[in-house]
Amino acid sequence: MTKTANTMWGGRFAAGPDAIMEAINASIGFDQRLAAQDIAGSRAHAAMLAAQGIITDKDAEAIREGLLTVLSEIETGEFPFSTALEDIHMNVEARLKEIVGEPAGRLHTARSRNDQVAVDFRLWVRDQCDAVDTALKALIEALIGQAEQGADWVMPGFTHLQTAQPVTWGHHMMAYVEMFARDRSRFADARRRMNLSPLGAAALAGTSFLIDRHATAEALGFDGPMPNSLDAVSDRDFALEFLAASSICAMHMSRLAEELVIWSSAQFRFVKMSDRWSTGSSIMPQKRNPDAAELIRAKIGRIFGANVALMTVMKGLPLTYSKDMQEDKEQVFDAADNLMLAFAALTGMVGDMSAQPENLKIAAASGFSTATDLADWLVRELGLPFRDAHHVTGSLVALAEGKGVDLPDLSLDDIQSVHAEITEAVFEVLGVENSVASRTSFGGTAPSEVRKQIAAWKEHLG
Amino acid sequence: MTKTANTMWGGRFAAGPDAIMEAINASIGFDQRLAAQDIAGSRAHAAMLAAQGIITDKDAEAIREGLLTVLSEIETGEFPFSTALEDIHMNVEARLKEIVGEPAGRLHTARSRNDQVAVDFRLWVRDQCDAVDTALKALIEALIGQAEQGADWVMPGFTHLQTAQPVTWGHHMMAYVEMFARDRSRFADARRRMNLSPLGAAALAGTSFLIDRHATAEALGFDGPMPNSLDAVSDRDFALEFLAASSICAMHMSRLAEELVIWSSAQFRFVKMSDRWSTGSSIMPQKRNPDAAELIRAKIGRIFGANVALMTVMKGLPLTYSKDMQEDKEQVFDAADNLMLAFAALTGMVGDMSAQPENLKIAAASGFSTATDLADWLVRELGLPFRDAHHVTGSLVALAEGKGVDLPDLSLDDIQSVHAEITEAVFEVLGVENSVASRTSFGGTAPSEVRKQIAAWKEHLG
Amino acid sequence: MTKTANTMWGGRFAAGPDAIMEAINASIGFDQRLAAQDIAGSRAHAAMLAAQGIITDKDAEAIREGLLTVLSEIETGEFPFSTALEDIHMNVEARLKEIVGEPAGRLHTARSRNDQVAVDFRLWVRDQCDAVDTALKALIEALIGQAEQGADWVMPGFTHLQTAQPVTWGHHMMAYVEMFARDRSRFADARRRMNLSPLGAAALAGTSFLIDRHATAEALGFDGPMPNSLDAVSDRDFALEFLAASSICAMHMSRLAEELVIWSSAQFRFVKMSDRWSTGSSIMPQKRNPDAAELIRAKIGRIFGANVALMTVMKGLPLTYSKDMQEDKEQVFDAADNLMLAFAALTGMVGDMSAQPENLKIAAASGFSTATDLADWLVRELGLPFRDAHHVTGSLVALAEGKGVDLPDLSLDDIQSVHAEITEAVFEVLGVENSVASRTSFGGTAPSEVRKQIAAWKEHLG
Amino acid sequence: MTKTANTMWGGRFAAGPDAIMEAINASIGFDQRLAAQDIAGSRAHAAMLAAQGIITDKDAEAIREGLLTVLSEIETGEFPFSTALEDIHMNVEARLKEIVGEPAGRLHTARSRNDQVAVDFRLWVRDQCDAVDTALKALIEALIGQAEQGADWVMPGFTHLQTAQPVTWGHHMMAYVEMFARDRSRFADARRRMNLSPLGAAALAGTSFLIDRHATAEALGFDGPMPNSLDAVSDRDFALEFLAASSICAMHMSRLAEELVIWSSAQFRFVKMSDRWSTGSSIMPQKRNPDAAELIRAKIGRIFGANVALMTVMKGLPLTYSKDMQEDKEQVFDAADNLMLAFAALTGMVGDMSAQPENLKIAAASGFSTATDLADWLVRELGLPFRDAHHVTGSLVALAEGKGVDLPDLSLDDIQSVHAEITEAVFEVLGVENSVASRTSFGGTAPSEVRKQIAAWKEHLG
Repeated sequence: MTKTANTMWGGRFAAGPDAIMEAINASIGFDQRLAAQDIAGSRAHAAMLAAQGIITDKDAEAIREGLLTVLSEIETGEFPFSTALEDIHMNVEARLKEIVGEPAGRLHTARSRNDQVAVDFRLWVRDQCDAVDTALKALIEALIGQAEQGADWVMPGFTHLQTAQPVTWGHHMMAYVEMFARDRSRFADARRRMNLSPLGAAALAGTSFLIDRHATAEALGFDGPMPNSLDAVSDRDFALEFLAASSICAMHMSRLAEELVIWSSAQFRFVKMSDRWSTGSSIMPQKRNPDAAELIRAKIGRIFGANVALMTVMKGLPLTYSKDMQEDKEQVFDAADNLMLAFAALTGMVGDMSAQPENLKIAAASGFSTATDLADWLVRELGLPFRDAHHVTGSLVALAEGKGVDLPDLSLDDIQSVHAEITEAVFEVLGVENSVASRTSFGGTAPSEVRKQIAAWKEHLG
Repeated sequence: MTKTANTMWGGRFAAGPDAIMEAINASIGFDQRLAAQDIAGSRAHAAMLAAQGIITDKDAEAIREGLLTVLSEIETGEFPFSTALEDIHMNVEARLKEIVGEPAGRLHTARSRNDQVAVDFRLWVRDQCDAVDTALKALIEALIGQAEQGADWVMPGFTHLQTAQPVTWGHHMMAYVEMFARDRSRFADARRRMNLSPLGAAALAGTSFLIDRHATAEALGFDGPMPNSLDAVSDRDFALEFLAASSICAMHMSRLAEELVIWSSAQFRFVKMSDRWSTGSSIMPQKRNPDAAELIRAKIGRIFGANVALMTVMKGLPLTYSKDMQEDKEQVFDAADNLMLAFAALTGMVGDMSAQPENLKIAAASGFSTATDLADWLVRELGLPFRDAHHVTGSLVALAEGKGVDLPDLSLDDIQSVHAEITEAVFEVLGVENSVASRTSFGGTAPSEVRKQIAAWKEHLG
Repeated sequence: MTKTANTMWGGRFAAGPDAIMEAINASIGFDQRLAAQDIAGSRAHAAMLAAQGIITDKDAEAIREGLLTVLSEIETGEFPFSTALEDIHMNVEARLKEIVGEPAGRLHTARSRNDQVAVDFRLWVRDQCDAVDTALKALIEALIGQAEQGADWVMPGFTHLQTAQPVTWGHHMMAYVEMFARDRSRFADARRRMNLSPLGAAALAGTSFLIDRHATAEALGFDGPMPNSLDAVSDRDFALEFLAASSICAMHMSRLAEELVIWSSAQFRFVKMSDRWSTGSSIMPQKRNPDAAELIRAKIGRIFGANVALMTVMKGLPLTYSKDMQEDKEQVFDAADNLMLAFAALTGMVGDMSAQPENLKIAAASGFSTATDLADWLVRELGLPFRDAHHVTGSLVALAEGKGVDLPDLSLDDIQSVHAEITEAVFEVLGVENSVASRTSFGGTAPSEVRKQIAAWKEHLG
Repeated sequence: MTKTANTMWGGRFAAGPDAIMEAINASIGFDQRLAAQDIAGSRAHAAMLAAQGIITDKDAEAIREGLLTVLSEIETGEFPFSTALEDIHMNVEARLKEIVGEPAGRLHTARSRNDQVAVDFRLWVRDQCDAVDTALKALIEALIGQAEQGADWVMPGFTHLQTAQPVTWGHHMMAYVEMFARDRSRFADARRRMNLSPLGAAALAGTSFLIDRHATAEALGFDGPMPNSLDAVSDRDFALEFLAASSICAMHMSRLAEELVIWSSAQFRFVKMSDRWSTGSSIMPQKRNPDAAELIRAKIGRIFGANVALMTVMKGLPLTYSKDMQEDKEQVFDAADNLMLAFAALTGMVGDMSAQPENLKIAAASGFSTATDLADWLVRELGLPFRDAHHVTGSLVALAEGKGVDLPDLSLDDIQSVHAEITEAVFEVLGVENSVASRTSFGGTAPSEVRKQIAAWKEHLG
């Protein structure tokens, strides 16, 4: 009954070795996603061949127009992809021949599938860096939106998931802005580093045709040609760097997603996720499962798994091209798709969610969370050495605990019974709002400081 | 021109949050592969509900027949999968309702999607263990076939890719038989450990219906029900163990594949791969690229990447079900597919390839590869201490090297000039054929011993 | 000022290539941990050589006694390890020669460092499996202890960290017993599979000496000799399987550790960790950072990192021994040490921690967590179809929510206003204690069922 | 006999929970490597506190001098590290107190261990980036040295480890220069991105003391302070980025190391490794095991394993500091040490190795490796379409193969019998030297082009 899985396989391979070889060897199933890049590369190549007098202007024109027709067929879904033609390059070239005839045969002059796939994939990853950049900007703006709204909402600052000191909601949101901004700069660096053209490396050794690699590089938006043809066809570190940057970014998303899951629990109630990003229960109306946050949290597995996969593939491969490297594309495609999906969902969730300021504040105020403020006051105002200040603070907390109250609820008399020099001014730092307001050091949690961070980022983002 | 990638995404998400949530949340795109298992589980559940008097026999019969119809629709490709219905469970149930009407609504009694997906996926992985077992047996038989053919072909035994001692082709092939046999036993252990039924765990806490979990377990071929309902819906270590076993197995395949790539090089010429598993060049007729071997070598990346992905997903998840766990299936499916594909290709390649005995023997004889045989003879026959024997051997090798000959080509006079007690009998261990013939210790490389290994395995495999 | 790191390296390598080669090549810094195994292997080998007449009984006796002396020197810390002697094997042999003289030179007959290190490391990992088994048993017993204490304490059963249904503390603890018991069986399988002796494989090809591999295997507690000498010196899957089992086990620990961290938060207060496993704050007396739980949660990274490391090393290595494989030991040692440390800490924490039954119960009762019990009752007692039952339940929950009460607090009149056939008996399933008591299906959360699980495990553990 | 491993553990933990907690919690065993950075950070902090009037100049002076004394004690190995004091920060502070007395207690004003360890570790990783940069430069120079020597030595250019086209040794060496140069730029980007100071973030929220974070940042060579205090204490992506860059770099080294292992085989004989980086056999004089190359090839496992470990640790950690993050340092230290070791060994090996130009050339000339040159000539000189040119070339190769000669050995008559228009000039592209000389496209393998690459790199490196 449950043998379907096996039978399917059996069936697929019953046709014998040829079917197996095709299954393991053909790439058209996934590399058709490189169609636009492949055609852009071929158009640039044809133009250069004509400019260098290697093919005629007429042939080049026919090729370039024909390729636009192919692209349009692909974009409208009319293009008949053929597995027998193995990959996107052969599919496009074969169709081009049908459209323009003999000149199509001249397109592959001074080129090889090795540099062709290298340029296609590099263009794809570069485009993806741009897409990531746009998506990260939107996510950052959503976070800034939250930060602006609650720049002065007090919440617990956690270490070890224990309340350590009061902080502000805006400050917490802006911490993620910093992380995602570093991610942006990491993708930007990767993009810049990969932005050199492998086209013209030919099979691996370069060519004796008088080609102009600088021209094709420029036409494709590259900063120049790669300076070593062996490296040009065998390098995949641009893909690994993209995956590494994606993994770190997914790690940041997993942290925020974990917080959203915890904050949505009945015990925390720090945020309310919108219905859009939750699923419910038909009979438990209050249940709001943070599905989207959980799925985002999980994406780091998939994305980093792709990083591990490609790193393992590349380990110990001799130069130059080995077929092993064909495994690069599916990993990058899957990681990129899931990264983009996670961006979209997280940006939506952050935009839609409602922090619960009352709950945040109550949580912030528990646990004598302003004890360090008191100790700092004793150091600063009374000149107590650090350790003595801690001792006095401990006694005051014990006093409050004994009375079942929080520190700001003690009377000045009570306080002076522990240390006579303490004055009325101490109350200015007790209480969570006083506490956060006082932390005005650069990058600190004070609302005034958070608003400066917000303003700086908004200006920076333009 | 090359913006297609981004635009596609843009297009997909232009429809807004609902489209994003559906994209991240729906699983029907991949979990339809669980259809046969889902239906088997539901049929067992319905039969049990009737046997326990929880639903009527008539309803159960209608459900069970209706499910067979659904299965048949799926197997023939007529079934209209719906993304709006999210997953395979809802797709099947909805269609069942169309077919049998009201009784369909009673199928879900005393069950939840949580235990349903757990049983489906577990059945799928268990089936896959069986498919792997069959495939590994075929691979082992192909290796034994090679070993039988060349039980006495002498080849270099390498350490550090340097010739260390002569061994036999059969012995080398049988080394992989040992590895893949351990892999088989690893999958068998995994299968045994996972073969308990989660069905009846319901959402997570069990149920107050008087169900019979032992009955459904037996009907589905399980050894019994899982004894803790919380564990039953939250455990994914069966999937991780499958991935770990798959990764180790893929590692073994990567080692053999690497050897095939090296052995196919113009410098080694140890084996000739058949055309089926190679690709050529239209103008370099001797070129035979070992594409299939390279792709097999690469599969460890993909399979182990899946292991990393799921391990990362499961890290630190609180009990019981979290949506993160939905990421388990695609990883396991992809790893399983690629493992099966690698088995099929490797089995075909091993069956088709032609070892080149002459080249193997020439390589084996180079580099004084029988020097250790000589040293052992001195210890064994003349009673020399180990270190002295090594000294004498070193002098004889130097003598042969000076004369530009190999050890067996020295005359007895030459030999006795270095150590007078050496007799004619020494020639019995010099020469690569004598060397391998002498290594008759259990598991050694002597053809006689290799044939014993072959015979034992053939008997074991039946 | 901060250049020390670099300078140290500079200094270390200033001595030139020899120092670098020694640093990268020597293994005595870590393989000295194999001393006991190395000596056990050598003692068995010497006894066998004598029994086979390859060395004299007198020499064997001298060797065996001398080795005991060496072992004793190592255990007392007197042994002078020498980096110049590279590895543990040469260190032991050189010292043996000092102690017993010439017979020491006969120990290495019919053996090589390749099979010697293979047997040493395999014995070490096998011993470690035994140590893990003992530690897992202790952890399981600690969990059972918690389960016994709170077999009927009601707590929320979570999905998505949202309360889904009430369960019992004992049930939750026993879920981990199941996981760790599977881990035990995984290590047991690994141990059984690895328990074959590589000794006698010699360099790689076996030997022409008439050795008795079965005898040395038996003396060392192996089930027999490995049947292929090439495999015997090049296999490292026993180490990978140990690391895979360790990783899955560490994953289980990470889940429990995460729960302990969340449960220790001020918002949950489900458990109170003992002071032993927490750190505090000198001025915030209520703060109790769950440091040990966090470190345990982190160990999966380190242990799985070791798994990735060794898998990557082994990818694509041709047979037989390559120096790459020297990287196996440090990974396994580090993973094993950290696994044992995590067991010790987690067992201590579980034993010491105090669940807070009052808090657990309050949390369990929130959110209409018995709504599914009500729906099940309507199906079971009134024969309502599943979907109708859900509809009625939804109306009752809405009614309760509107009145600001929980389901058990509704009056029968209220209830009957929604569905007239509901009787007084419905109250038997409302309320969290009724709910859990009713879930008596095999493996369910009912205290009666949990006590059966506990009893079964206690009998099984003996 | 072999129980030592277990017993040692047993012994260690027999002392009970406190010993276990200390073992899992204390970091002084490894974080003492941060000593120089910790002291630099403290000195900068003390100077700033005085400049801001928070402590007196006299106290600051005492602290700063005392810290220099501590540093000197550490550098000379006299410093008594104490496990009871847990970490490097407390060890240094406690000793400072012994040396300077009461002022030591004022150092920790407006600071916390959270920002202290963040600044220490960041400084360490930044220093390591500098050390890596220096080491990569040396490796690149060694490769350029090889390239200069053999800019025109012809060797096979491989795809699939099959000869594809002739290339030059210099070109192959320069391919690695490109890879390692990208690695350098990757570390430079990482260094720039991490070069912001967390100091002054205090526990997590900033401080109410009037500190000057810009001043401490400048004193420590940072480009400025980190703008969000929560992020400052919880970010570890700088460490992950360092590990990712290290992993990619180790991947590049693994590729070169694999080539060196293959090239050193008796079958290839492309290079001779120097004795320094090989190990031999006392009785097989020609044996030269490329141990160092194998160990370098393996380092990717260890380094990428560290990357996986830390990524797994960071997955899903809520803000801000969690104890899990203490696992960061050992991973980075181990990866950095092994990366530096691999650089040192590889640079030494590349500098010492001797390519074998004769063997390279013979290998390059086999297999009609200039067939593509012939085809390109037909396209270029005779204007044949690409596909026709391939057809003619195939016929000529078949002709040569039939005669048992290589393409340049055919007579012009023979050649014209296949295609009458071919002229004497064709011989200018046949033969491997002609082939490589003709590939003068930018980045091509022609010696003239390779010398340009070399010159450009030498100028760039200064």
